[in-house]
Parts: sequence; structure tokens; C-alpha cells
Amino acid sequence: MANPFYLRDVVSIKDFKREELEYLFEQADRFLEMGYEEKSKYGRGKLMALMFFEPSTRTKTSFEAAMLSIGGHVIGFSGARGTSMEKGESLSDTIRVMDRYADVLVIRNPMEGAARYAAELAEHPVINAGSGSEEHPTQALLDLFTIRRLKGGIDGLRVAVVGDLKYGRTVYSLLNALKLYSVEVYLVSPPQLRIREEALYDLKGMKVHLDVELDEALKLADVIYVTRIQRERFPHPEEYEKVKGSYKIDARAMRLVKEDAILLHPLPRVGEIAPEVDGFGQAKYFEQVRLGRYLRETLLALILNENP
Amino acid sequence: MANPFYLRDVVSIKDFKREELEYLFEQADRFLEMGYEEKSKYGRGKLMALMFFEPSTRTKTSFEAAMLSIGGHVIGFSGARGTSMEKGESLSDTIRVMDRYADVLVIRNPMEGAARYAAELAEHPVINAGSGSEEHPTQALLDLFTIRRLKGGIDGLRVAVVGDLKYGRTVYSLLNALKLYSVEVYLVSPPQLRIREEALYDLKGMKVHLDVELDEALKLADVIYVTRIQRERFPHPEEYEKVKGSYKIDARAMRLVKEDAILLHPLPRVGEIAPEVDGFGQAKYFEQVRLGRYLRETLLALILNENP
Amino acid sequence: MANPFYLRDVVSIKDFKREELEYLFEQADRFLEMGYEEKSKYGRGKLMALMFFEPSTRTKTSFEAAMLSIGGHVIGFSGARGTSMEKGESLSDTIRVMDRYADVLVIRNPMEGAARYAAELAEHPVINAGSGSEEHPTQALLDLFTIRRLKGGIDGLRVAVVGDLKYGRTVYSLLNALKLYSVEVYLVSPPQLRIREEALYDLKGMKVHLDVELDEALKLADVIYVTRIQRERFPHPEEYEKVKGSYKIDARAMRLVKEDAILLHPLPRVGEIAPEVDGFGQAKYFEQVRLGRYLRETLLALILNENP
Repeated sequence: MANPFYLRDVVSIKDFKREELEYLFEQADRFLEMGYEEKSKYGRGKLMALMFFEPSTRTKTSFEAAMLSIGGHVIGFSGARGTSMEKGESLSDTIRVMDRYADVLVIRNPMEGAARYAAELAEHPVINAGSGSEEHPTQALLDLFTIRRLKGGIDGLRVAVVGDLKYGRTVYSLLNALKLYSVEVYLVSPPQLRIREEALYDLKGMKVHLDVELDEALKLADVIYVTRIQRERFPHPEEYEKVKGSYKIDARAMRLVKEDAILLHPLPRVGEIAPEVDGFGQAKYFEQVRLGRYLRETLLALILNENP
Repeated sequence: MANPFYLRDVVSIKDFKREELEYLFEQADRFLEMGYEEKSKYGRGKLMALMFFEPSTRTKTSFEAAMLSIGGHVIGFSGARGTSMEKGESLSDTIRVMDRYADVLVIRNPMEGAARYAAELAEHPVINAGSGSEEHPTQALLDLFTIRRLKGGIDGLRVAVVGDLKYGRTVYSLLNALKLYSVEVYLVSPPQLRIREEALYDLKGMKVHLDVELDEALKLADVIYVTRIQRERFPHPEEYEKVKGSYKIDARAMRLVKEDAILLHPLPRVGEIAPEVDGFGQAKYFEQVRLGRYLRETLLALILNENP
Repeated sequence: MANPFYLRDVVSIKDFKREELEYLFEQADRFLEMGYEEKSKYGRGKLMALMFFEPSTRTKTSFEAAMLSIGGHVIGFSGARGTSMEKGESLSDTIRVMDRYADVLVIRNPMEGAARYAAELAEHPVINAGSGSEEHPTQALLDLFTIRRLKGGIDGLRVAVVGDLKYGRTVYSLLNALKLYSVEVYLVSPPQLRIREEALYDLKGMKVHLDVELDEALKLADVIYVTRIQRERFPHPEEYEKVKGSYKIDARAMRLVKEDAILLHPLPRVGEIAPEVDGFGQAKYFEQVRLGRYLRETLLALILNENP
């Protein structure tokens, strides 16, 4: 198969076919074993521009580590403060200027559609590192890669998705990625953070169980994917406090979980998974971080090089 | 000709002779064609320190991209927040410390004369990336390089300079660079932003037309150089609003422009050139950005290497 | 001697033996003479993560310059703003995530014990770049390296330590490093900033002269180490103003200093050493900065490579 990522934009997970993801994951398996001397030829002499209009250490650092690890260089900004945007420059000018400096652009912007817009404007490939509340495709890619590595495959798995299913942008991308596989999905959330109807519409044809009880999901799932519940999503603090505890994974909850299940979280977490859970063998969120770096290395290498 | 930039400070455009600029531009022509393998030997093992006491994504990113593209490394800071200056350190100590870490210093400081002061203190060469309201020599160098590339030469051209001629620091450096060539200059500005008498004094011997009407300038110019008009320069907002529209380049204005003229802007723009103008063949401000990176690569390479 | 720094945490100067410091200094002598081609193999393909929870240009830039100079790469953050900590992430999660990206972690945190905690959590080595008010071990290492280079050795020297002996974190680490040598120490401070009893207890067995007059210390010392006196340490501004002048090194004070003595300061200084002193031959604080970079290069190289 010819490299389907060469010079390609990564805006939405929905732009990719299953066999393209498989191609990426097989290459990522290779990158996990590769030494720096070999890897560094993929990024040599290339510049990646970070355009982070909202702050994020996690995603930013992961992309930086990935680009530097394949021998490339990083330029750009994080936070709109101190940028030309502050002087009143349009988003499109900022994109077009960075496009003159860099070989690949990585953009995070709170505005819905900003990454798609950037991809249309820029001559170089654009990677969406989170835009609006909808898409975070590289997170979904690394989530799937992690599942595949740790479970030996994706088809046939029961995946519980727990937490904020309404606003969490990783969830939407994850579900659309899982849709390419033959999985059964169990959605667990407070009623206030139930998945949106439009999102559900996109998942037609997928086996989705709605409004599953946490304990039930914990018992049957092969993969438990927990997301952050943000206090600011609730109009009244007391509602948040009421809900918070019932979706928390602690030692008690872990006793329900199958021995060979895996527990994932896109991080940062703020209490959804208790620290006491870190010692359980099923807790794989830090391994997910580690694998994510390799997935992003591979993705950058494939975008920048026709023949990897 | 021996490389006249080796270990040299670049503080003011007025420190350079025409044949030195020509040398730089010829080298930049070479750098435009050069691959990374060849280019990267110029910066290998060298550190550039950015000392940006006021924020600037545009200039900062351009220097970063340039240094990384010739195989070098970048250290330093942007914004005085979080620096030792905040703890009360003097400018001279900050300069002398960075001078111990880096092979070349790039300084932006709102204070008049700061770059000259840095050049005197530092043992390593200093590049002025904008100081006070007066000088921005590397912008002037890339402006001239762009004109030369796109028009095939500079002598004999009619250059219209439009916008803020009083405070815009790129204008002052540009005019002093153009002075080394045989050009005719047309100055177009609101009366409040007319060029300063002292600046004019420097341009003695140059063919300068003052207070030219915009439409007249658009019709005869080979190069139209537009600069940002900053709202904060006007004591009353209504004065700004009144002036703003009359110096705007839009589709109507473009109909007056010669077919082979070029339209430049140092960017960021905030409305001086309408987005509809981007589609016109004469609009070259993004090409100016692209060429600017190569000019800065070349300048850094020449400063750091005796024999380029 | 086998490299005692390989994969080792550098949390407190008290964790090291004299022969280990000697090993480091001998290697640093080598690094001072080494070209980039040779040096860059030590950092090749390695990532250093800066985790600076409080700002610092000085230390941050020194580590960046050091890592880049040995051919490595730098990722990370400075200031808690814009990090996942702001979203409520725990320190331990932040450390464990960075630990998945980097080969060595450099941490600065205002909390007492933060670096030790990080070293226990992380699988990769951790360098303390200043934590709480107690420890700044790499500053102490470079202080000693500077003394050894400039005085030809450390044993037998008379070292005056002047300024804030109570809160200055460099002082505490320096004294504990000097304790490994046979030196005589003269402590000079305002009564409000006298060394703490617990700190003094640690120095048992060392020849320490307490409450020495400035002039007396200046006359007999081989090394004069001055630290910053911070206004905010004084409850009343007038107390600060009263004290400030009496501990200032100016041209008058320099007339008391031995010709072959050396004057050091960890920088930034805010008036403790007058600018007029910079011209005196004994003023070595900028040389200390320069040597500090090499010391940190060497330390990183030894941590990352078993056989340097």
C-alpha cells in the first residue's frame, strides 16, 4: 500500500479509512523498535510549526517530543498572548505566514472548524491538535493504537466510555475511530453530560449501548476509557459535586474490572481516577502517554516522507 | 570580496554600504537553492540567543526558522515576564550573561539605542530585531531582497511608501536602505503620520516626493510598500476612523496599480490591505515573508562563518 | 573510577562525595576544550524536559544551552501558566507524563522536597534546578568548579560568603559542597539574614566564622561569594534600606580585596555589587556564568552516558 499520509492533512478522524489506520499502526509498531539514527532521517531539515491558540502542555509537549525524536525542528507559539493576533492580525494571515516557514503545521484553536480552515489555506499539511469541542484526531489515533498494542487487536472488544460524553472532544473522535472496527460500545455518563444526538447520529451502524450503569460497564468491558468531567460544565456547583463521586474509578470500582481489561484516560485527570488505582495492573494511562509519542512520531514521519 | 558580515553587528541599516548589501543578496540567491545538507553546516553547533523584551511572533519565528534551517540552535526569551529583568537585573547584565551562552544575539527592545548598547557590551555579534521606533534593519534587508528578486533589480524603480511614516520603524530603515540605490520615492500618509523632519534630513540626496496622493502613487509606482496604521497613534478614535479608510488598498485601488508593480507589507496588517487584494497578481506580501526567511538564514550564516 | 553520575538523580549536593565532585570537575575540564563534533555525540537523540514551575531565565537558559551544546534537544515548560497543572492536574501526574517523553528531567519548584519527590516518581534521572529555599545543587557544583578553575584548587582557601545567608538557596548548597573540602568560611550578613541554626548544624566539622565584619572578610578572603539581598525578606522597607548599603561591594570595598582573590555572585544581582566593580580583575561573575554552562554540559553528558 502506498503511504496514504504523505502530505495529507489530519483534520478529522472521519477522513480516514480503516486500512489507512492499519497502515499507520503497523508503521508505528516499527517506530517503537527503531533507534534514533534511523528515525532521525525522517525529520531531518524539516520544521514543524506549533500554532496553539489555547494552552496545552500535554499535547504540545507530545508533538514537540515526537518531532525532535525524528530529527526535526520545532517553531511556533502557544497561547495567543504575544502573537500578532494580539495586534489584530487575522487567523488566515497568521496561518499563511507560518505556512511560509514550516513543512507541517500543528494547530489547536477553540473555534469550531479552525483546523479545516487552516488546511484549506495552507500549502503544507495541517494537523488538528484539538479544535472546538469536536475533534482531536491524533488523540483518537493514539487511543486506538494503545488498545491495539495492549489487547492485540480491536475487533470484538467491548469498550466502555465513561465521563463527559457531551463536551469532551477526545470522545467524539474516539467513537468515530472505533466505528471503523467491529466493537461494542457502552456509554456511561451523568445525564447532564450524555452524548449529543448529532454525535449519536454519526455512529449509526455501530453497536452502542446508551446510559449504561457504571458498575455494569466495569464488569463487562475489555477497555474502559475515562474522560475528565469539568466542573465548569455544570450550571450549579452542587450538581457537579453530586455527580462527581458516582463516576469515579477507585479501588472499589477496580474490583469489578476484568483482570485483562485496560483502563485508559486522555489525561490530565482531575479526580476521575483515584491515585490508588495507579497500582492496578489494568491502569494503562501512562503507557498510553508513552505510546502516544511514538504514534505521533510515526504520523509526522509519514506526512513528511513519501516512502517511510 | 571578503565576507563583510563575518562577526559583524547588524544594528542599523545605515552602517552598511551598497556593495555589502549586494554581497548579501547574491549569497541569499544561493541559499534559496541550497539543500539542508549543505546549508546545515553553517549553523552546526552554534547557538542563537533571542532576547525579545517586547513580544513579536512574526520576527521571532522568522529568526527561529532561519537559525534552525541552517542547522543551528535557539535559546532565549520573549517578553520580559519571567526573566531576571523582573527580579531587577540590569539590561547590561542580561546581555552579558546571554553573551556567555550564545554565538549570536538577536535583540528586540522598545528602548531607543538598546541594540547599539548591546552590540557594544557583547563580545558576540548582535542583530537588532527592532529597537525603539527607529530601526529594524533585517526587515529593510529582506524588503530590498524581495524587491530585487521580484523586479530583477532596484535602481530606477519608483517606490511608493504608504501609511504610518512617523512611528513605523520598518519605514525608517527601508528608506535608509533605498537611499543606497537610485530610486524615486513617493511618500503617502495621513497628515498626522507624516514622516519626521529628522528622518527626512537623513534622506538628503534622495529623490523624495512628499505628501503624494494615494491614487497618484498607485498609478506610477513599481513598488507599493504599505505599513500598518496603529489606532493608538491617534489621540481621538474618530480621527483614526476618518483616516483609516483613505489609506486602504482594496480592489478599487488595485485597478489603478500597474500590472507589473508589486505590493508589499511588513505584516501583520490590520485592514490596510483588504483580503480581496490577496488574489491580485501584484500582492507579494506572503512571498516577502518566504523570501525573508532565506534572507535571515543567509545573514546568520554570513555572521557565523568567515567563508560561506 | 566508573562514572558515578550515570542515570543518577541530582537532588541535593549532600548526596555526593568529594571524589565524585572531583570526577565531574575533571570531565568538565575536558568539555571546556572539546569541539562540537565530539561533544554532540553525548546528547544525540536525547530529550531533556524542563519543568520550571517558577520562572527563571538564568538557570533555564543555562540548561538549554548546555543540552543543545552536547547535541541534545529540549522540551518542557516554564511557569505554571498554560500547563495541565492549571487544569487541576497533580504534580505527580505531570512528572510521570514528562517522564514518558524525556531522557532526563530538570525541575524547579517552589515547594520544599519537590525535586526529591520527582526523583522518586520518575524512571529517568531528575536534576533539581532549585526547589524550596534550600537546594540548588548545580549552582553549587558550578561555583566549586569556578573556584577550582580560577584558584587552581579548593583546599586551603578562605571563602567569604556575603549577603542573604538565611533564604538564599544557593548559599546552603554551596556551604554543603565546600564542606567536602578543607576550607575556612567567613559568613557576613545583616543580623536579619543570618544563617539558620539548622543549616549551621549541617556544617559541623567545618571551620566557620560567624558574624564576620564585611571589611575584615574582604581583606583576608581568597574567594568572596556575594548573594542577592531581596527587599521582600524585610518586614519594613526602611530596614532593607538601612542594611542594603552596608553589604554592598563597590570600588571602595574592592581596595581591601587581595589582588589574587576572586569575586563571585550567582546572579542576577540587584545592587549588591556596583557596576564600577566589573572592571576590577577580581570580578569573575561573568566567567562563572561561562564556566557554569560547561559544568552543566558535562553533568548532562555524564548522566546520559555510561562511558563519557
